[in-house]
Amino acid sequence: MIYITRRERFNAAHRLFRTEWSDQENKDMFGGCANPNWHGHNYELFVTVKGKINPQLGYVMNLKDLSSLIKAKVIEKLDHKNLNLDVDFLKDVMTSTENVAIAIWQQLETPIRELGVELHGVKLMETENNFVEYFGETN
Amino acid sequence: MIYITRRERFNAAHRLFRTEWSDQENKDMFGGCANPNWHGHNYELFVTVKGKINPQLGYVMNLKDLSSLIKAKVIEKLDHKNLNLDVDFLKDVMTSTENVAIAIWQQLETPIRELGVELHGVKLMETENNFVEYFGETN
Amino acid sequence: MIYITRRERFNAAHRLFRTEWSDQENKDMFGGCANPNWHGHNYELFVTVKGKINPQLGYVMNLKDLSSLIKAKVIEKLDHKNLNLDVDFLKDVMTSTENVAIAIWQQLETPIRELGVELHGVKLMETENNFVEYFGETN
Amino acid sequence: MIYITRRERFNAAHRLFRTEWSDQENKDMFGGCANPNWHGHNYELFVTVKGKINPQLGYVMNLKDLSSLIKAKVIEKLDHKNLNLDVDFLKDVMTSTENVAIAIWQQLETPIRELGVELHGVKLMETENNFVEYFGETN
Amino acid sequence: MIYITRRERFNAAHRLFRTEWSDQENKDMFGGCANPNWHGHNYELFVTVKGKINPQLGYVMNLKDLSSLIKAKVIEKLDHKNLNLDVDFLKDVMTSTENVAIAIWQQLETPIRELGVELHGVKLMETENNFVEYFGETN
Amino acid sequence: MIYITRRERFNAAHRLFRTEWSDQENKDMFGGCANPNWHGHNYELFVTVKGKINPQLGYVMNLKDLSSLIKAKVIEKLDHKNLNLDVDFLKDVMTSTENVAIAIWQQLETPIRELGVELHGVKLMETENNFVEYFGETN
Repeated sequence: MIYITRRERFNAAHRLFRTEWSDQENKDMFGGCANPNWHGHNYELFVTVKGKINPQLGYVMNLKDLSSLIKAKVIEKLDHKNLNLDVDFLKDVMTSTENVAIAIWQQLETPIRELGVELHGVKLMETENNFVEYFGETN
Repeated sequence: MIYITRRERFNAAHRLFRTEWSDQENKDMFGGCANPNWHGHNYELFVTVKGKINPQLGYVMNLKDLSSLIKAKVIEKLDHKNLNLDVDFLKDVMTSTENVAIAIWQQLETPIRELGVELHGVKLMETENNFVEYFGETN
Repeated sequence: MIYITRRERFNAAHRLFRTEWSDQENKDMFGGCANPNWHGHNYELFVTVKGKINPQLGYVMNLKDLSSLIKAKVIEKLDHKNLNLDVDFLKDVMTSTENVAIAIWQQLETPIRELGVELHGVKLMETENNFVEYFGETN
Repeated sequence: MIYITRRERFNAAHRLFRTEWSDQENKDMFGGCANPNWHGHNYELFVTVKGKINPQLGYVMNLKDLSSLIKAKVIEKLDHKNLNLDVDFLKDVMTSTENVAIAIWQQLETPIRELGVELHGVKLMETENNFVEYFGETN
Repeated sequence: MIYITRRERFNAAHRLFRTEWSDQENKDMFGGCANPNWHGHNYELFVTVKGKINPQLGYVMNLKDLSSLIKAKVIEKLDHKNLNLDVDFLKDVMTSTENVAIAIWQQLETPIRELGVELHGVKLMETENNFVEYFGETN
Repeated sequence: MIYITRRERFNAAHRLFRTEWSDQENKDMFGGCANPNWHGHNYELFVTVKGKINPQLGYVMNLKDLSSLIKAKVIEKLDHKNLNLDVDFLKDVMTSTENVAIAIWQQLETPIRELGVELHGVKLMETENNFVEYFGETN
């Protein structure tokens, strides 16, 4: 078993807030992240898959295929978008880094399995100082 | 003459658009950057000042003072904000990296001179692949 | 279960040596790291906690709270300090990256648990080429 | 148990291809990586070992010794070389990042054990966007 | 006048040698860089242009256009190639970082001027420790 | 004329203080940087030289020679040292980043000229957020 990782990037706006709370309550809880006019990030996404090496080809899978799949399922839907407003798979989701990472996992798990390898982990960096890692429900 | 640089960071939402154009016209010109629901970045700002070394203190100026000034004049106004909607000194400005860099220069030039040193340049990175440098009107 | 990581930084002096050894013996064993007049590093500290997502808030814990706790328990005691001379929790400890990482773990484990999450790992980078990871006694 | 990691770097040429395939077949499968005149990379290698801390010395092992061993067993054989043509331990190996990582593991596992510690993992970065991790046959 | 920079990357094989010298003479002069079987790098290219801001659009030029031009004129010809064998504009050129940087300048200078802006500088990084900057014949 | 840059690194302890001032006065002026027991940094040094390309060799100068010279004149004297106590060319110098950069320039200017090229600039990074650039007395 060997692990391969592909990095992709996207730039997006978002905010943290609960609709049933006032602006002041949201600000008290989420600080600047609740700004009603949004803020944004350059997100870095690391997708790790694991599998056996194909003896004829020497690799677990073609990283270009993995990159294309991540772009089709995730990046095209998130890049230059508003995570709260523009993304079908984030409807009614608090757009914390944790929840976005889990939602990305859910977008990728099945199509990666259909390529014959297994999704191992998703790492999502919101800033150079903050990141989240998710390894699925059973880990 | 010696040059010292301080890096500061801010996270913000923005979009590129002209109000007199339709959404489609803006999209045609600015691509994803025109998304009506905004997108965002982790901006990195490098502020370079130049001056003589104070012989008693060994430095041109205390970098903590420079950092405090940049935070007071720029970062607090841009961080976790919408560059198009929330910033007094970006009113009616197209929030391209170029224009934001020049506006930051204008915020900093006089207060830095009042500290006895001279603003030399502003470098603003929008992504790891794109950045802008501005050295004032006469350069 | 999801993992979140916060990076903090500190600059410190230290040296590797045993008091019962001569300067020459220390130099033979520890090389330049034994320099009697100290040397120093920009340390990068990555603290990883794991927990369940709070369904109302969308995150495991507020990263500002994690940052504040790391600063209060670790950074304020190590930053711009001499690790061998100035730090109560490193008394009589050989200030190798390994031992400093473990000591940081011990400072953080209980207060992080009191916040309702669990300390998962501590990664301490001494240089861009050398780092240590510690996951507690039972891992 | 604690984990320590040393980064080393090497620059090398390589290509992906199967000798029994035509240039066109190789290009169809491996894309630009099959270029008959080779291409190359700045590889970054992270070698992680685990062990107990030597109580007298404060560290698991001297990182200079680990660095010297990696250089003698791996870097000197790969740096400024052609991975397909110049490396004894890559004879008849498809030089994918996966296979190079495993071959590096095999070069290091025994000599690291002879130093009294255990090889935990090998991470090999081919570009800033692509990397592979290997933790041995039983992981 | 404002300066904007776009980073692009390419992976390539090369070697330093003079055909009229023996392998030993080339090795004596160029060290490992003369390896007859080639070696390679992940090159990072920074292209800086300068110009006036288009008042209607807010930027000097669309960075996507600059990126496309760099890709068409430079990256597609160098990426996953052998700089000595595969590149028309490097025929009979010693493929030092200096010479490659100048050749890239020559590919870009005229087409960038045709876009209405001026090429200011080319920075080419061969490794994280070595890079070259070129600002044209008159600078 | 073309510019080539070599990065080297050193780890050192230092403090900012004036001997004629009390500990409290030094702390008031220099903050944590005045800690009597020292602190330290991983310094990154970028040395830029300029010259004409040797038409036979394709480069301005061999970067290995530049690296060796920087190591002999600077790095061996600063690495794993105390900048205030251990360095002959920093005697009685306030070890600010500015002064250390200028002292490095003075160590390198003549020997680099003797190699037939000209020292253009010295950039010294103290942390990822703070750096200094010096281009000689006449710039």
